[in-house]
Amino acid sequence: MKVGIVANPHKPGAKAALKRLGDVLETSGMEQVYEKATADLIGRSDGLGGLELAETADMFAVLGGDGTMLNAMARLGGTSKPIAGINIGTLGFLTSCTDDEIESFAAALKEGTYSTSRRTLLSARVIREGREPRDFMALNEVVLARGQTGRLVSLSASVSGELLNHYRADGIIVATPTGSTAYSLSAGGPLISPSAEVFVITPICPHTLSQRSLIVDDEAVIELSPDDTSEGPMLFTVDGRDCIEIVARDRVEVRKAPQELNLVRLDGRSFYAALRQKLNWRGG
Amino acid sequence: MKVGIVANPHKPGAKAALKRLGDVLETSGMEQVYEKATADLIGRSDGLGGLELAETADMFAVLGGDGTMLNAMARLGGTSKPIAGINIGTLGFLTSCTDDEIESFAAALKEGTYSTSRRTLLSARVIREGREPRDFMALNEVVLARGQTGRLVSLSASVSGELLNHYRADGIIVATPTGSTAYSLSAGGPLISPSAEVFVITPICPHTLSQRSLIVDDEAVIELSPDDTSEGPMLFTVDGRDCIEIVARDRVEVRKAPQELNLVRLDGRSFYAALRQKLNWRGG
Amino acid sequence: MKVGIVANPHKPGAKAALKRLGDVLETSGMEQVYEKATADLIGRSDGLGGLELAETADMFAVLGGDGTMLNAMARLGGTSKPIAGINIGTLGFLTSCTDDEIESFAAALKEGTYSTSRRTLLSARVIREGREPRDFMALNEVVLARGQTGRLVSLSASVSGELLNHYRADGIIVATPTGSTAYSLSAGGPLISPSAEVFVITPICPHTLSQRSLIVDDEAVIELSPDDTSEGPMLFTVDGRDCIEIVARDRVEVRKAPQELNLVRLDGRSFYAALRQKLNWRGG
Amino acid sequence: MKVGIVANPHKPGAKAALKRLGDVLETSGMEQVYEKATADLIGRSDGLGGLELAETADMFAVLGGDGTMLNAMARLGGTSKPIAGINIGTLGFLTSCTDDEIESFAAALKEGTYSTSRRTLLSARVIREGREPRDFMALNEVVLARGQTGRLVSLSASVSGELLNHYRADGIIVATPTGSTAYSLSAGGPLISPSAEVFVITPICPHTLSQRSLIVDDEAVIELSPDDTSEGPMLFTVDGRDCIEIVARDRVEVRKAPQELNLVRLDGRSFYAALRQKLNWRGG
Repeated sequence: MKVGIVANPHKPGAKAALKRLGDVLETSGMEQVYEKATADLIGRSDGLGGLELAETADMFAVLGGDGTMLNAMARLGGTSKPIAGINIGTLGFLTSCTDDEIESFAAALKEGTYSTSRRTLLSARVIREGREPRDFMALNEVVLARGQTGRLVSLSASVSGELLNHYRADGIIVATPTGSTAYSLSAGGPLISPSAEVFVITPICPHTLSQRSLIVDDEAVIELSPDDTSEGPMLFTVDGRDCIEIVARDRVEVRKAPQELNLVRLDGRSFYAALRQKLNWRGG
Repeated sequence: MKVGIVANPHKPGAKAALKRLGDVLETSGMEQVYEKATADLIGRSDGLGGLELAETADMFAVLGGDGTMLNAMARLGGTSKPIAGINIGTLGFLTSCTDDEIESFAAALKEGTYSTSRRTLLSARVIREGREPRDFMALNEVVLARGQTGRLVSLSASVSGELLNHYRADGIIVATPTGSTAYSLSAGGPLISPSAEVFVITPICPHTLSQRSLIVDDEAVIELSPDDTSEGPMLFTVDGRDCIEIVARDRVEVRKAPQELNLVRLDGRSFYAALRQKLNWRGG
Repeated sequence: MKVGIVANPHKPGAKAALKRLGDVLETSGMEQVYEKATADLIGRSDGLGGLELAETADMFAVLGGDGTMLNAMARLGGTSKPIAGINIGTLGFLTSCTDDEIESFAAALKEGTYSTSRRTLLSARVIREGREPRDFMALNEVVLARGQTGRLVSLSASVSGELLNHYRADGIIVATPTGSTAYSLSAGGPLISPSAEVFVITPICPHTLSQRSLIVDDEAVIELSPDDTSEGPMLFTVDGRDCIEIVARDRVEVRKAPQELNLVRLDGRSFYAALRQKLNWRGG
Repeated sequence: MKVGIVANPHKPGAKAALKRLGDVLETSGMEQVYEKATADLIGRSDGLGGLELAETADMFAVLGGDGTMLNAMARLGGTSKPIAGINIGTLGFLTSCTDDEIESFAAALKEGTYSTSRRTLLSARVIREGREPRDFMALNEVVLARGQTGRLVSLSASVSGELLNHYRADGIIVATPTGSTAYSLSAGGPLISPSAEVFVITPICPHTLSQRSLIVDDEAVIELSPDDTSEGPMLFTVDGRDCIEIVARDRVEVRKAPQELNLVRLDGRSFYAALRQKLNWRGG
């Protein structure tokens, strides 16, 4: 078993956690291979680029929070090999454990006492007349939203070729079940269990109050486009990261990606328990 | 083709609409068979009971609104033969057309220019120690909610054996995609396309503000139960209709029913267009 | 300074907290007088009825949570003398401190290092043809809601004689700023600073999604009434406590009460800090 | 009575409506004076600048929708003389009548059968170290929100010197009662009656779900500021119009403006009726 290791070098405590992880994996007799910037952080010169790492390792351990997971996933090119997130400090939605649990994490890897949670990825294509289409991949969501303006924008969404609606809003989100706990939730969307084979389309601050989130099956192809040629450019964002301008007559096509992500889930950890903890749910 | 006809006798205009439907079907050469109360309304003595009608007819035309559809569906015992709702006056979410369109409706039946939209049904079982379990079937939703009290109630939900949460709330709704436009929507839930194979669990006025709707795949078994033996009985409701009391230590198990409903959809009618119209969506 | 003491006898730890409070007040040289059930709890035979206590004491210390405060306020007949809530365990919205702070609480009383936060009360009158009107007083809210039924109810609200709206909903809440953190919040209402001279009218699960909470100035007279004589009785509830049935043609008139409540606020405690703590607000 | 006339020249039908208004006012014996661009539109060369018009006229008739009203209000420099909006086509929240009602509008002016609805204005000051402060006036709202980025921003709000909260959100809105039906409503805020002397602070898509709108009395001074020096500039927007960049260490102070706006309200028109119509409220 060869474990590929990626860390967020800007996270306080990353270096110490990396050392501990390295020691523990070594003790357990598991091979380690490091991503380049991560290797640099602890003075190793044998780091690999993201795609090479994706090729070489059997599974991945990512040190950092949910944002680090999103970045690592992108750098690894959408690998379907198991990925485990080790959060420094608190628990995240994507991470498998905290850095306090590195020992039991390593033991679980060695003994195979973990399962993987399959996560759908979004594939988004930005189409502009007379240009090569540009392709993006998202784990959480893609967003088409107003750019540098204080006004609502006009945009359309269609589902598998059928008009859903014309919106006057701050923008519109298409999220996976995984992304349902991120921006879509802030914009009023529902939570979605990872096993539900759906996407959610959530308008952001729609002018018409009855324009709620819509759940569609994940075989649907969702198209987003600006509606009004007189408005300025909109922003198209992928997992809160890449950011490109969209102008009138551009179209964004969103569908399920052929790849899937496999998140490591330690035995006894549950999605609902994570919801209860992260969202401060209390019962009685 | 034998059309089974059911009407809401209390709806103004039902009698006139029935006559017109009868005439039009006769002209089109289609056989008609009437549900008992419906037959009585127009002076026919050959009406059949619900289950007998379900057996005899090849498809069903229901005159009335969404409420009439829910009632008819229950009386027909959850038939999977095509059902078409003809709304008197306005358009509903479940109905296929309005009474203004009876001619084109009959033509569509005759020529087969319609499709059916498959709708998942919920099967709910109420379990009480020392009693026979009681079974119910819902097209929209089942609800466990506070009874005759001004206070929040304590209740638990689990999904396929795993605790979802303990709630302090007015109650909790489990809805199908079809029911996503009914009570769940009023309680803050999302819209769900009929083709998404999911249920939505929506807490009603939860005390903890982050307790949003949760989407689960429709293979899940959802269990609801009162949490606090010192609170009075709760109400369990099916499609806003049946209403029984639930006490401490009772449990309600909700799962996908083996039957499905097949709603007639005239060609050119779309679910999204119905959303836009019924929810007063406006774009620009 | 004579301190009137009321406790929730059912709260675990009430007896111990009472003893400590008694000792500390005695040490500080402040006179104590007890409500009857509270006196009984610690074996004193000199307890007074609520109204007599309200008359005798200069201020009040209430041991328990927000619910105990609401009850005590009712039993004291809406006194305007300062009331301090001492919560056992956690902090509440109405309480001044926790039982861990009894010493500093007593010191603050003695040295006068506290202010009072004036809280508007609601006066509600239930009017039925041919009967004496019945009057109620609320600190949080009054609610007109569906009774023992699984269906939405029809009801009207008017503001100072002008129709606000006909609703199809689970019910409707009229809340004070103090009550804005209670049931109205669960039903989707806004938070209201205690110094804002307004009420909030919040529909509960309205069928029409654009029917949001409405803020009105607190000189307004709000009238609620059932709209449909064919529906069963509704429930009228005051601070989640009293509960009476309302039938067709009954009316409920809600206005600002002539009395006000004066909550003791220890120096350095802020309403916004309480919001941040109770609602689990986090920034970065 | 001298009526100052302002129109949105880009609105289809503006020219025809202007002519009719001119004719009707002339017939009624009322003097007319035109804003410059408006005069140009109908070939008059005697148009005045906004401030001169504000000085000269006794009241104002504005032809256009709510956006035109916001613009006219700004150009008239926050006059407190009565302003009547005449919407072309539909009814707005700020407008007094539609262009179908010009005759009855003129009659009401002549006979004085109208009242005015006083509307609070916001005064906002943008403060940057080492620069002259910049002042703005808003009828609806001011907004501090993320600029050209796909990420949430970190910002703080304080109320009269006391910290309200640190937010992770798309931005934050401070709105008047008048603005409560505009952007704040889209972001989840409540409706506010014009007579309530409050502002509403509404976070836009806050990361923490319990961060609801807060109502504060309109004597409060609200301060907004970026929280994180490493994030890019934010956008500050006034009534969806002016748009300036705000950087770390800038502060925005928002308070009630000394001026007020007086909207003409024809007798028999009600704020609640406008809500019901504009928000598609339905009862039974």
